[in-house]
Parts: sequence; C-alpha cells; structure tokens
Amino acid sequence: MNMDIATVNALPYEDFVNIFGNVVEKCPIITAAVWSGRPFVNLTALETAISEFIDALPESGKEGILRCHPDLAGRDLQSGTLTRESREEQAGSGMDALNSADASRMARLNEEYKERFGFPFVICARMNDKANILRELSERCPNERSVERARGIEEVKKICRLRLQDLVHTDSPNKL
Amino acid sequence: MNMDIATVNALPYEDFVNIFGNVVEKCPIITAAVWSGRPFVNLTALETAISEFIDALPESGKEGILRCHPDLAGRDLQSGTLTRESREEQAGSGMDALNSADASRMARLNEEYKERFGFPFVICARMNDKANILRELSERCPNERSVERARGIEEVKKICRLRLQDLVHTDSPNKL
Repeated sequence: MNMDIATVNALPYEDFVNIFGNVVEKCPIITAAVWSGRPFVNLTALETAISEFIDALPESGKEGILRCHPDLAGRDLQSGTLTRESREEQAGSGMDALNSADASRMARLNEEYKERFGFPFVICARMNDKANILRELSERCPNERSVERARGIEEVKKICRLRLQDLVHTDSPNKL
Repeated sequence: MNMDIATVNALPYEDFVNIFGNVVEKCPIITAAVWSGRPFVNLTALETAISEFIDALPESGKEGILRCHPDLAGRDLQSGTLTRESREEQAGSGMDALNSADASRMARLNEEYKERFGFPFVICARMNDKANILRELSERCPNERSVERARGIEEVKKICRLRLQDLVHTDSPNKL
C-alpha cells in the first residue's frame, strides 16, 4: 500500500485507524487522536501531528508507549506474537537468527535494562544491524532513567516515520 | 482471574499490561502508563489513576479513545474481530441477537452518529439492555459534539470499572 495524502485525508476514522493504527506500536489511540487534525498537507504534517501528540503526554504516558513495545529477540518473537510490523523489522536486523551466544547476551541485557528502567530497550531495528543493537543496549544501560525515556521516545519516532513511509508517498523533493 | 491488590502491585509491567491492557478498549498505553504510579492502595486507586490519565489527555486524545471502540452490533461483531471483552459485553446486552428490524435501525443510527461526531457511540453495554441502548443512541444523536465526547468518556470509565472488577477483588466494604 502506498497512498497519496489526499487519499489519506479522505479516509473515515475507522479505515484510518485500521491502516495507521500501529505506526506507534500497539498505540492506535495516537493515530485515532491525530485524525481530529486532518487534513494534513503532506506526510510530514501527519508525522508531526503524531510527534506532537506524543510530546504532550505526561512522562508516564511516554513510559506507557515504551512498555507497549516488545523486547528485541524476546519472547514475543519466539512465540510468534509480534505485530506484523515488529516481526518484519526484527527479522530485517537479524534478531530472528541470533546464534546462541548473542541470544543469551541479548536476553541478559534486555532483563538488566527492564529491571533498571521499568520499560524495555527500544531502538529502530531498521536503522541498526545486530552489532549496533547489542552495542547500544549495553552502552545505554548505565544511563539515567530520564535520558533513556527520552532516547526511547526518539527511537519510537524513527520507527513511526519508517512505518508511515511504507504507507504514504513521501513529499516530493521540490516541496521540501 | 480475581487477584488482590498486593498481587497486582507485584506484577512486572509486562504481566500488568497483558492482564489489564484492555480495561480501556484497545488502549494498552493507558494501562502501561499508570503502572508508573504503583503501588495502588486498592482497586479504587488503580481505577482513579486510569481515570485521571484519561482526563489529562487533550480533547483529541479523548476522541482517540472513543475511536478505538467498535460499533455496537457492528461489523467487528459480525466478522468475529471484537476483543474478548467487547464480545462478551455485547452478547450480554443482546447485541449479537438483534432481529432484522433492530439490526437495521442500530446500523442506521450508528452511521448517523459517526457521521455527525467523527467517533462512535459508546455506552456501557453491561449496564444497559437492548431497548436502553437503542433509545440512548437515538436520543444522544442531536447533542453537541463536546457533550457527546464527555458522555462517551464517562461510559468508557464505566466499562473500565467493570472490567477491572472482573480482574481484581473490590475493596472490602469496611474500608470504604
């Protein structure tokens, strides 16, 4: 699917939420909320509306978004219960084909991270390979909670941007 | 499942979101957000935390919550794609067994309502029978948008309360 923004703006909310409901993982409320702000002049405007809605949430709400994300190479991947988008993204960065040493290391670091922060490590898998992800996970673990919350939300926005670009034509270069 | 509040407070966020993620329909972010506020002294405190989170959302966010709700006796019921909670609630108020005249009337009124407000008619089905629901739907249609948004959110909170009571022991009477 790759529609233009006029088509997006003409969608009833039910279709809009069905199509875009998972651009922020398991948070269709965000998509459903920004529908109130249509029409969007272009894809960037839609992305900005989502980003601004997220930024206006209390800190607990931002943590809530992070907690709706699965672990990388975690139990949802193993049990086949990832969303379609997450499954494809994790597979693309090799998370579904870790050797046993990497899988053990990832599991241990994920647990450490969640124990420390109370939310999962979130990173845009499509912009990182396995080595990057493992390095980031170990390097970010000692950070402050507020730093990691903000960092995780930035990654959520990168994931959202790429998911949106899979669905809607990007703005033509001469309009930027 | 019917746990006490101490058990609830001891849940890691993943279990908490798995168990309580749909107390507000398709909005696990809300459950995931209020986990930040644990421990809860009792079920009422958990319910209040959810209610306050909803109240603090911008109006678009409240409309987003409503848009995550299915129509009563709508296409999700017919296609079997309702959440378990919604399916049981709609069946309990007879929405799955409307005669063809009632089904047509419900479909027409739902469409009118959504066309007028840009969100669906939401009512706590467990607190209303078929006749009540049809009457409310026709009576609420002429309201102002802001009135219906607030009214719908009140119904969301009633639904949430009953779903919570299915999962957690209510406070003992002598503590009220």
